[in-house]
Amino acid sequence: MEKLREFTNKITDIQRAIAVLNWDQETYMPKKGQGFRAQQIGTLSGLAHEIATSKAYEECLLELKDKESLSAQDQRNVQLLLKDLEKAKKLPGEFVIRLSKTTSKAFHAWVEARQANDFKVYEEALTEMVNIQQEKAKIYGYEDHIYNALMDDYQPEATVDQIDKIFADVREKLQPLITKISESPQVNDKFMYQHFGKDEQWNLGIALMKKLGYDMDAGRQDLAEHPFSTTFSPGDVRVTTRIDEQNFYDMLWSCMHECGHALYEQGLLEEQYGLPCGEAVSLGIHESQSRFYENNLGRSKAFWMHNYKDVVQAFPVQLNDVTLNDFYQAINIVKPSLIRTDADELTYHFHIMIRYELEKMLIEGSLKVNDVRDAWNEKYKSYLNIDVPSDAKGVLQDIHWSHGGFGYFPTYSLGSFYAAQFEAKMREDITAYDEKVGAGNYAEILHWLRKNIHEHGRFYSSEDLCKQATGEGLNFKYFMDYAEKKYGEIYSV
Amino acid sequence: MEKLREFTNKITDIQRAIAVLNWDQETYMPKKGQGFRAQQIGTLSGLAHEIATSKAYEECLLELKDKESLSAQDQRNVQLLLKDLEKAKKLPGEFVIRLSKTTSKAFHAWVEARQANDFKVYEEALTEMVNIQQEKAKIYGYEDHIYNALMDDYQPEATVDQIDKIFADVREKLQPLITKISESPQVNDKFMYQHFGKDEQWNLGIALMKKLGYDMDAGRQDLAEHPFSTTFSPGDVRVTTRIDEQNFYDMLWSCMHECGHALYEQGLLEEQYGLPCGEAVSLGIHESQSRFYENNLGRSKAFWMHNYKDVVQAFPVQLNDVTLNDFYQAINIVKPSLIRTDADELTYHFHIMIRYELEKMLIEGSLKVNDVRDAWNEKYKSYLNIDVPSDAKGVLQDIHWSHGGFGYFPTYSLGSFYAAQFEAKMREDITAYDEKVGAGNYAEILHWLRKNIHEHGRFYSSEDLCKQATGEGLNFKYFMDYAEKKYGEIYSV
Repeated sequence: MEKLREFTNKITDIQRAIAVLNWDQETYMPKKGQGFRAQQIGTLSGLAHEIATSKAYEECLLELKDKESLSAQDQRNVQLLLKDLEKAKKLPGEFVIRLSKTTSKAFHAWVEARQANDFKVYEEALTEMVNIQQEKAKIYGYEDHIYNALMDDYQPEATVDQIDKIFADVREKLQPLITKISESPQVNDKFMYQHFGKDEQWNLGIALMKKLGYDMDAGRQDLAEHPFSTTFSPGDVRVTTRIDEQNFYDMLWSCMHECGHALYEQGLLEEQYGLPCGEAVSLGIHESQSRFYENNLGRSKAFWMHNYKDVVQAFPVQLNDVTLNDFYQAINIVKPSLIRTDADELTYHFHIMIRYELEKMLIEGSLKVNDVRDAWNEKYKSYLNIDVPSDAKGVLQDIHWSHGGFGYFPTYSLGSFYAAQFEAKMREDITAYDEKVGAGNYAEILHWLRKNIHEHGRFYSSEDLCKQATGEGLNFKYFMDYAEKKYGEIYSV
Repeated sequence: MEKLREFTNKITDIQRAIAVLNWDQETYMPKKGQGFRAQQIGTLSGLAHEIATSKAYEECLLELKDKESLSAQDQRNVQLLLKDLEKAKKLPGEFVIRLSKTTSKAFHAWVEARQANDFKVYEEALTEMVNIQQEKAKIYGYEDHIYNALMDDYQPEATVDQIDKIFADVREKLQPLITKISESPQVNDKFMYQHFGKDEQWNLGIALMKKLGYDMDAGRQDLAEHPFSTTFSPGDVRVTTRIDEQNFYDMLWSCMHECGHALYEQGLLEEQYGLPCGEAVSLGIHESQSRFYENNLGRSKAFWMHNYKDVVQAFPVQLNDVTLNDFYQAINIVKPSLIRTDADELTYHFHIMIRYELEKMLIEGSLKVNDVRDAWNEKYKSYLNIDVPSDAKGVLQDIHWSHGGFGYFPTYSLGSFYAAQFEAKMREDITAYDEKVGAGNYAEILHWLRKNIHEHGRFYSSEDLCKQATGEGLNFKYFMDYAEKKYGEIYSV
């Protein structure tokens, strides 16, 4: 195991260095640094891949395979590393470097296109990205659908079949609730679009994250175009946020959301650095943590019973005659919208469905990049009855494709559904749950998540982890129960 | 050459990634990130060293050795890379990793010791650092003096003999001028220690750097404990500064100084990335650039004739009754002081001499780390008649030893002396030099430096570069001429 850890430390050290270079690229790097930075990231990716697919590393793993003298954790580590290796071996070093360069180019094209508000600026780089993703899927190999090969990087158990069924569920069960809500008297949230000063928003976000348990000695927040969290080590897990002075939601949800991700990463076992049991199990579970903090906790009445006073203190003029109940209703407004990250927690899943459908078609080749903008705009019209006014607010709004994240979007919906199921179990396990939240005490919640989710890393699969924590596998019912209870009350439906 | 560039790109990409990790460590990294960051930097250092000392790389170089079909530049590149390789090969990979870890540890101990204002906190880590530096010098091998082996990393031509002679010159020729000045009526600079707001200082520094030609699309400024500049590529050369709201000098000189370094790095040839002809020739020449901008240009009357109005505009209350001449005299005050980076350009060389003498003794083993604080304080008393009130303001003031930079300090003095010689030549080559500077036009100066210094990289040795640019090798006379003319006028001596 000691020899194995030499390998995994080396590989992980390089990968975390790449994470620092990426973080810097998206927060502080000057414009002209772009070309060489892409080259540098490409070189490091190639090196990590080289070690991770080396004969010596493989032999070391094979020697440890099925060794019963190892702890259960280490047996699992070896088993998963071998599985990862089988997969990684399929990608030639040359391909890995090319993928990394394509990604860097696509990211910058996306930034430029957003600034120019013109999808055309992005088309060439995105086409290269789709091509290389198809190439990757073919190298990996797949059953049934080419998209499955890509989804496997983010959510190992998921298949197009399963995700199609989940979205059928969403349409059948969630859509009727949304329709009922749309026919009810609407909530007013105009006061959320006043001027909210940048510094006050920044300070409020930091204060909330600290209360939730985010350790600022093991992390920090910076500004970025598209908020993300990133891990350099268990002692350095960073978040980024975006502040819109005309829209209070933007910072609020990005802070709570990224905080949930970061709490997961800060909760992984330090002594498992570089090993699967020290890694997040899947993006779906990762997203369950961010969604839990953003929605289940962050949009609950009990949470704001304690915290709303601080918001009023930061913005006394803007919120002068806004009651706690007004605020609670506003942050839970259900209203089809343009921007995914601004969406409410119900219509959100239609944003995901659109992306899922488009990227599935791009990867299977039934849709061309030149036609993506039109297809996007049409789907927004048909699913959400929304007219997309510009590329920047439409097809260019998400960073994911520019990062090569095809197969990533469905995990957002899975995250919400896992989160609802976890919350239901927490309410059983933690006595006086609402009272504690209402008193600003989130320690038992974080403890529950640490013990049931974070500390296990990849020891269990996503589904087994869910069973271990809640007694059953993912069940959409919990999300519907949650949605019907909460929104039934708010909209009297 | 193409094959060679694959190697040099790889090596350089890793080294620049390390530079990003170091920059982050000194600007933004949270406290608990320290342990794994040191490990990550160690791993990358080891990898770079591995490639840079590999058989394949060596064979590639040997194949190109003395190939007359190569351009003169490439012949020189090959020659220097072979020389660097001979040196690098001497250090075992294990040693390089250990050196990197020791450095990271020493840096953090230094930061802590500074905060605790207690040299004792730093002693253990510094002792390890001195030991490993001695080990390095012995591995390299040396003639005459063990310190020569270390200085070679920063200033290839320099030896203890030569530096001892230069400091003898400093004592014989510079000391009498300083004595005369100390007997003259003193300059008043109290107004420089009022409250100068952080934001205004920051903006002023950025504006000055832009005027001097620093390309903000190929760089940025951040705050750091001890200002430095760092290069990630010709398109991303960053500086850091430190702002003391009670002392206007601090930001001013660190900005101008680091800007000089950064202009050199931004002026290196992009197409020579990773090759010696795309690297700075020596720290002495590097320092000549920072010292030129900080002192020769930045403390000249002509420079402030144009720029003083902006300072007054930023601080109208503080500088209400301070004339241009008052300001000019203040920024050229000669007065023995505690802090090297605050020192005037004459007594500065005594600060360097103290460090040089101490580190030479540490490395030769005639002084123990436990005795460094006392020795430091005694030398400040005897050379500068200064009582050192605390460790933070004494022996802990410089970052260099914590970075392993033994043999580095003398290059600061060499820098000033080169800078004076370059200025003398510029005044011959650029018509109406003072008028142009007085009109805020520094383009011809930067052009002269680009053509005569920056663009050559390591094509010439430091001495040859100096001859090429000025017609003769380094001559202390130019510094004395400059000092006597300028300070003779200010202090009427």
